[in-house]
Amino acid sequence: MIATKAYAAATPKAQLTPFELERREPGPHDVHIDILYCGVCHSDIHQAREEWGQAIFPMVPGHEIVGKVVRVGDKVTKFKVGDLAGVGCFVDSCRTCENCKNDLEQYCDEGMVGTYNGRERVTNAPTYGGYSTNIVVDENYTLHISDKLPLEGVAPLLCAGITTYSPLRYVGVKKGHKVAVFGLGGLGHMGVKFAAAFGAEVTMLSTSPSKEADAKRLGAHHFALINDKETMKSLANSFDFILNTVSADHAYSDYLNLLKTNGTMIIVGLPESPSTVPAFSLIPKRRSILGSMIGGIKETQEMLDFCAEHNIVSDVEVIPMQKINEAYERMIKADVRYRFVIDLASLK
Amino acid sequence: MIATKAYAAATPKAQLTPFELERREPGPHDVHIDILYCGVCHSDIHQAREEWGQAIFPMVPGHEIVGKVVRVGDKVTKFKVGDLAGVGCFVDSCRTCENCKNDLEQYCDEGMVGTYNGRERVTNAPTYGGYSTNIVVDENYTLHISDKLPLEGVAPLLCAGITTYSPLRYVGVKKGHKVAVFGLGGLGHMGVKFAAAFGAEVTMLSTSPSKEADAKRLGAHHFALINDKETMKSLANSFDFILNTVSADHAYSDYLNLLKTNGTMIIVGLPESPSTVPAFSLIPKRRSILGSMIGGIKETQEMLDFCAEHNIVSDVEVIPMQKINEAYERMIKADVRYRFVIDLASLK
Repeated sequence: MIATKAYAAATPKAQLTPFELERREPGPHDVHIDILYCGVCHSDIHQAREEWGQAIFPMVPGHEIVGKVVRVGDKVTKFKVGDLAGVGCFVDSCRTCENCKNDLEQYCDEGMVGTYNGRERVTNAPTYGGYSTNIVVDENYTLHISDKLPLEGVAPLLCAGITTYSPLRYVGVKKGHKVAVFGLGGLGHMGVKFAAAFGAEVTMLSTSPSKEADAKRLGAHHFALINDKETMKSLANSFDFILNTVSADHAYSDYLNLLKTNGTMIIVGLPESPSTVPAFSLIPKRRSILGSMIGGIKETQEMLDFCAEHNIVSDVEVIPMQKINEAYERMIKADVRYRFVIDLASLK
Repeated sequence: MIATKAYAAATPKAQLTPFELERREPGPHDVHIDILYCGVCHSDIHQAREEWGQAIFPMVPGHEIVGKVVRVGDKVTKFKVGDLAGVGCFVDSCRTCENCKNDLEQYCDEGMVGTYNGRERVTNAPTYGGYSTNIVVDENYTLHISDKLPLEGVAPLLCAGITTYSPLRYVGVKKGHKVAVFGLGGLGHMGVKFAAAFGAEVTMLSTSPSKEADAKRLGAHHFALINDKETMKSLANSFDFILNTVSADHAYSDYLNLLKTNGTMIIVGLPESPSTVPAFSLIPKRRSILGSMIGGIKETQEMLDFCAEHNIVSDVEVIPMQKINEAYERMIKADVRYRFVIDLASLK
């Protein structure tokens, strides 16, 4: 077993504090990764505070992991010692259902095994995430990371990146499309970058005039304040797609009329309360609402390769592990542009 | 002007009573149709009672019209005297917007001109529907009707037929797909027929065990009671598509989990209150909700031709014009299998 330093929440009400855990010895197909950076996702907070249903404690969050391979199992073919490697939101799945066979492991019929707050399929042992010095993962659930990009900016691609890349690809965003990105946070700032990189004309929808300059720097062509009634009226029937990244409660119906005929609102934020959808806001223009969750391993690799080719990373603020509780508080106030990333050197 | 007998609602609270109106003399592109049958759509009731926003009175409802051409304007090329002809939910549109140019006149940016409760584009005169002895309509908004099928069963195809045909085609329903049809009324019974004709495996979702035999006669392969918790549990993740025809208030979220990964719930019913949609019911399986409204002229013709080829009509109960108020009361109690159709001979 591999002694590993980590930060964990002991209970849903506890702050994160130092914790020691043991990683399994790498099996024949495992990759042992020395973690360099781990992004801090808003879902880390929801799960550490048990806001999304029963959770496993102590919990070591973190599913935006980038590091270096330090050991490989004797059957591993995809990685060698010294390679850069990444781990996203899941570390295993059933591998046999229709979804797994179609490279959609995130929708595995038996449920994907979360990188943390999950249970290993065979041993039932709890999984621990990337707020730790190292991790052991099956090579088939490990991603290749380019050395062309700053690693701290790559870490959030493993969740915030793929969560926005995947649906934009699924609906086929390309040159000629008008795309609105609603909400400029960890997800939204990646959505703007990808939609622009795919050739779309991008409009940032936001509540805060202070974000205009930033939105444009990230690649948005236009900026619109959703609390300005006249602006909203003028944008009716404007967009082919709205990438809705907002996880605060809101009525989808307030924004559906911004969609053109055949337009789609893509939902990637997870508001706590159900939203309201009147049939009258969908039917008269054949509009749709589509949910999407992260992406499969194959598509995550495709996204990482796309980012390396197009020089796309997340905008991050690097913090030491010891600042995690403060970071959570700032995230809740949306006071981060646009992702905290833990430098694990601080824990070694 | 052409003196025309009709039935109209004088006010939102009034019963329908005999009414006389004048149709315009056919212009160069107009077709003058002697109406033989007109279907009775639930939206006739909603509009005659002004339940869908401000309406125009007196109102002559009816947008499922089949008849015979008795006169044509001198520039008409598509119809000749003696042809069978049909008119659906709209009789004009702007003809120049993107939607009109793409054969999606029903989503016209300037608004389609309803067959009734609308206003003619040039004269602003109110339009009157098919609860009448004849109608004058531009040939480009008139459909060809086959003489192979019983005309009373064809009339409802002009609304109930195209409303279900169009979205099933749009999402590409075909052999190998599992389709659930929710609600067995005017729309639902056509949905079952089309989904089965397209080769799908069809399940009828209903609240009433008494409808099972009928559902199977119409073409459903399976029948499921939605109020049976065990059945519903066993159907989780089962369907590629749900055609939701229910217009009573209900929570979409109660049925979204019946969809497979990438599955779509198609909404064609118009509940009065907004439904609730939790992000959690869409995101974890990349599910979507899609609205759809009738169909364009080109697709309506395609649907009518498909029906003639595959011997598909609506199941109807023919009534004389004088029974319309009674028919409305029975429709509100869902006491019709599955569409009332007025025989206009009763008014001549």
